[in-house]
Amino acid sequence: MKKINPVKTDPGKVRLLETFDNSFPDRKYLIIHRVNEFTSVCPKTGQPDFGVLTISYIAKKKCIELKSLKYYLQAFRNEGIFYENVTNRILDDLVKVLNPVWMEVKGEYSVRGGLNSTIVAAYGKK
Amino acid sequence: MKKINPVKTDPGKVRLLETFDNSFPDRKYLIIHRVNEFTSVCPKTGQPDFGVLTISYIAKKKCIELKSLKYYLQAFRNEGIFYENVTNRILDDLVKVLNPVWMEVKGEYSVRGGLNSTIVAAYGKK
Amino acid sequence: MKKINPVKTDPGKVRLLETFDNSFPDRKYLIIHRVNEFTSVCPKTGQPDFGVLTISYIAKKKCIELKSLKYYLQAFRNEGIFYENVTNRILDDLVKVLNPVWMEVKGEYSVRGGLNSTIVAAYGKK
Amino acid sequence: MKKINPVKTDPGKVRLLETFDNSFPDRKYLIIHRVNEFTSVCPKTGQPDFGVLTISYIAKKKCIELKSLKYYLQAFRNEGIFYENVTNRILDDLVKVLNPVWMEVKGEYSVRGGLNSTIVAAYGKK
Amino acid sequence: MKKINPVKTDPGKVRLLETFDNSFPDRKYLIIHRVNEFTSVCPKTGQPDFGVLTISYIAKKKCIELKSLKYYLQAFRNEGIFYENVTNRILDDLVKVLNPVWMEVKGEYSVRGGLNSTIVAAYGKK
Amino acid sequence: MKKINPVKTDPGKVRLLETFDNSFPDRKYLIIHRVNEFTSVCPKTGQPDFGVLTISYIAKKKCIELKSLKYYLQAFRNEGIFYENVTNRILDDLVKVLNPVWMEVKGEYSVRGGLNSTIVAAYGKK
Amino acid sequence: MKKINPVKTDPGKVRLLETFDNSFPDRKYLIIHRVNEFTSVCPKTGQPDFGVLTISYIAKKKCIELKSLKYYLQAFRNEGIFYENVTNRILDDLVKVLNPVWMEVKGEYSVRGGLNSTIVAAYGKK
Amino acid sequence: MKKINPVKTDPGKVRLLETFDNSFPDRKYLIIHRVNEFTSVCPKTGQPDFGVLTISYIAKKKCIELKSLKYYLQAFRNEGIFYENVTNRILDDLVKVLNPVWMEVKGEYSVRGGLNSTIVAAYGKK
Amino acid sequence: MKKINPVKTDPGKVRLLETFDNSFPDRKYLIIHRVNEFTSVCPKTGQPDFGVLTISYIAKKKCIELKSLKYYLQAFRNEGIFYENVTNRILDDLVKVLNPVWMEVKGEYSVRGGLNSTIVAAYGKK
Amino acid sequence: MKKINPVKTDPGKVRLLETFDNSFPDRKYLIIHRVNEFTSVCPKTGQPDFGVLTISYIAKKKCIELKSLKYYLQAFRNEGIFYENVTNRILDDLVKVLNPVWMEVKGEYSVRGGLNSTIVAAYGKK
Repeated sequence: MKKINPVKTDPGKVRLLETFDNSFPDRKYLIIHRVNEFTSVCPKTGQPDFGVLTISYIAKKKCIELKSLKYYLQAFRNEGIFYENVTNRILDDLVKVLNPVWMEVKGEYSVRGGLNSTIVAAYGKK
Repeated sequence: MKKINPVKTDPGKVRLLETFDNSFPDRKYLIIHRVNEFTSVCPKTGQPDFGVLTISYIAKKKCIELKSLKYYLQAFRNEGIFYENVTNRILDDLVKVLNPVWMEVKGEYSVRGGLNSTIVAAYGKK
Repeated sequence: MKKINPVKTDPGKVRLLETFDNSFPDRKYLIIHRVNEFTSVCPKTGQPDFGVLTISYIAKKKCIELKSLKYYLQAFRNEGIFYENVTNRILDDLVKVLNPVWMEVKGEYSVRGGLNSTIVAAYGKK
Repeated sequence: MKKINPVKTDPGKVRLLETFDNSFPDRKYLIIHRVNEFTSVCPKTGQPDFGVLTISYIAKKKCIELKSLKYYLQAFRNEGIFYENVTNRILDDLVKVLNPVWMEVKGEYSVRGGLNSTIVAAYGKK
Repeated sequence: MKKINPVKTDPGKVRLLETFDNSFPDRKYLIIHRVNEFTSVCPKTGQPDFGVLTISYIAKKKCIELKSLKYYLQAFRNEGIFYENVTNRILDDLVKVLNPVWMEVKGEYSVRGGLNSTIVAAYGKK
Repeated sequence: MKKINPVKTDPGKVRLLETFDNSFPDRKYLIIHRVNEFTSVCPKTGQPDFGVLTISYIAKKKCIELKSLKYYLQAFRNEGIFYENVTNRILDDLVKVLNPVWMEVKGEYSVRGGLNSTIVAAYGKK
Repeated sequence: MKKINPVKTDPGKVRLLETFDNSFPDRKYLIIHRVNEFTSVCPKTGQPDFGVLTISYIAKKKCIELKSLKYYLQAFRNEGIFYENVTNRILDDLVKVLNPVWMEVKGEYSVRGGLNSTIVAAYGKK
Repeated sequence: MKKINPVKTDPGKVRLLETFDNSFPDRKYLIIHRVNEFTSVCPKTGQPDFGVLTISYIAKKKCIELKSLKYYLQAFRNEGIFYENVTNRILDDLVKVLNPVWMEVKGEYSVRGGLNSTIVAAYGKK
Repeated sequence: MKKINPVKTDPGKVRLLETFDNSFPDRKYLIIHRVNEFTSVCPKTGQPDFGVLTISYIAKKKCIELKSLKYYLQAFRNEGIFYENVTNRILDDLVKVLNPVWMEVKGEYSVRGGLNSTIVAAYGKK
Repeated sequence: MKKINPVKTDPGKVRLLETFDNSFPDRKYLIIHRVNEFTSVCPKTGQPDFGVLTISYIAKKKCIELKSLKYYLQAFRNEGIFYENVTNRILDDLVKVLNPVWMEVKGEYSVRGGLNSTIVAAYGKK
């Protein structure tokens, strides 16, 4: 079976993320970014996976800059990684650079064999 | 009336299920698998039933492997079993192999005589 | 104005309902039946009413048999009865034969003069 | 199996239909009436059938009066008649009282055993 | 600017409302009426307003009769009144004649200048 | 039965319509205006009717001015007139002031007794 | 890889089909049956396939009986056959028993690897 | 890269807002205004941003007048401001003129690079 | 009434458009670009207008470059121009730089006073 | 600006395509494959593009094998190519291996800067 060659996981992907200062740090308001075009590679079959990511958080001192978020997520394009792991990895990386009050990452992955999957992971208290 | 000959219930179906280790066991995150193409046979009429299954859980040490889940569910294709029983049976089998923190199985069965049914069964605390 | 002649309410309709034993009485799981093709007659105008019924319950010892439920509901086809009363009557009859932990009957009736109605009645604790 | 007792087909149903004069007989304009709540009885099983009827026509000298159309269609409520036949019967009756330039009757009948049917019959040239 | 001449508010509109006895006063069930075709006049511009009203309540001793509700609401057709006030006025009038356990009136008004409004007012405890 | 008192048809309504010069008279392009909030009164029952009008045309020397079209259509608010007639009347009035290459008026009227109607009338060749 | 054992194609499946006489043979009207729950087996992988079939025809002397059509289609449940072939086979079998003026069979098969297929085959002239 | 020249933020925009007295100050009812056509300019790229704003509040003594709200929001059309900041700025300005019991501003901004954002900020207790 | 100050129409806007060579000039294939975020200003009221533009064409020697198309369309943001004129102006400008086999511009403008408009203009033969 | 490094176009991609014999060559039937997860790279910006491809054809002697089609399309994942060119290239490659009676390839590409594109190319006569 033909496979897309997934590269090894690059733990340094987090350095692509940039932030800007939260102008309203005293108000606990909600920020939600939805990414319709997330794609990575299945580590077992080498086949591409597709999904929709929803990243929700309450900022403390920093907000995520959107272009850098886009480039960070594109860096998974040729990486072999399971649904459960990619969702948790993105949560860990974003928590490291933002140190938010609360954050949730939801990944809704597309249909494979009549079966589609959703993974939801969270950090902190809402 | 013509009938599909349903086979007797095979209690050993559970052995088709495979698992892999949960890489983030310290985080209580949610995993949802939706199966659009579930089909079994009505034990009373011998007619095929169709439905959508939604399996949601919070893993403890193990996650369900998706291909094995697909084969496990296909094994009901020619089995005669009631809506209420198949939903609870799948919950029991998955709880046995995963020992999850929490799990819910929802079966939404298709229209028969202007009437369609949904069964929701759960295990553990969310 | 031409009227469909509604018959008087037949209180014995409840005897059409059949039950089967709940195989998982120790688990409090949810059973939902949706009936898209419910019809009765308006007692005031003699005109036909149309609606969608959703019957949800948590079984104790018994589950409702689906064909008998269909025949029971068809028995309202030529009966003159108000929305509020038919919804509560069906709840009373089902509670009598099932003695469930919890049950809810919702009737969504179709548009009349730019106005449509929904009635929701429940029994027991969810 | 419990059955709703269908009455025999009443060929005199056509006399329920009333008309009014077309005020714009020189313009060939299109009139479409959609009936969401048509119901009759299956002559084979005695079970109720449900459907949506769409009646389209170009009037010559007469238009159909809507209340009379409603009562005419309600008269099929307890009559046992096949999909193919009821669609053609309604077309025949309406053509008789309206003598239209063109008319089409479409019946879209609801799901039975995972299968739903549409019948389309027409008269004259569009 | 051309205006529809709105009539002054008629406080006696409440007498159009009729009720019938609640047959199940011991059960706290929910009644919801949705009105798709509500229209009144803007008191500032004299232009017509359109909206969808949803009236939900738990009856005590009385239920609202639907035809009288329709006529009551039609009486606002040529009356000049603000969104916030018409929603609260209808709630006050219905509470006066029904004395319900709980009632909510929601008005969803249509788009004006790229902007649409929803008003929700309630009485009693749910 | 309570009725909204419809005024007699005012044949002079056409003078409310204003036009502006078509800047591209040599190109046969299509102009479509959809009116979501049309309302008039049923001449038989005195009850309000609601509908969506779609006015499509290819201009010759003149285009219809939108505010004047809105006021013209609002003038039907309290007028008693049948669906078939109001659709044809609007077509006649617009053809008179615009003298278009082609015009079509479609009226889609809301549900009455489970039945809704669409009327389509046209002028000239497309 | 686990496979459902497909049986060999049974060419005698056509004898399951029953017909009834067309009551309106002089009118060329359209009959459409949509089957939401068609399932067969992929001959290459042994995996189940799912699809929606739409069967449209203009009858000559005979119409297809719906229960027999349902049983005929269920007979493909465990048969290994390609999308292109099953669609054409059903067309051939129905043409043989009905000898229609015109017939079209459309199969819309579900998603496999982000890819879904539709096959449309026809007989005669519409 | 071509840019629309954004003007500097005008802190005096709040003076465009007008209010009217709340006629039902003793009832805590909910007012929701949805603005489908909000547009501003990205301060980083000079490119236009588009979004849907939903403003919900429980009034104390004053309600926002809708035309003034429309003009206030149009004043952001050529202003360079981040999503997070515009949402919070509108909340601050409205709270200043209304002094409401509770208020929430939600901004849903359109897709940029396969990614869309929602910001939700609130004041007071619901 | 507060107005956004529309600038005079700049006839030189066409110079913002860039093209690239069509690599398949011998095949008459269809190219469609849909622009969800078009906005200009009403020349009569000074209020902003919003719309969706669909530009379809069959290229001869040149294709439109997408970024330049985006900047060209953004140049209408503060310009006062009628729906009918902006649609035809864009068609004229694109025809000038592309000299296509065929082109159509469709503008669907948003709701104003319960009324929304669509303008469709074309060049050449399809 | 960060870029995914697109590989040069590989003209030998066509050798990934496999075919099987058409079992019904005498019938001109329609085959449609829809691919929801097509992705390539923009040759100008190095950013990923996403789209939905619809491939429709009437076979002569050969049909396309679905797994090989999937691998062929995945081979564009890291290739830099314009929308217009990728659509025409796929058409050329498929025509080469299938020699069909007729074929159409439609590519619907996702939103970029509020603008999305559709390209439709065809071969032969339908």
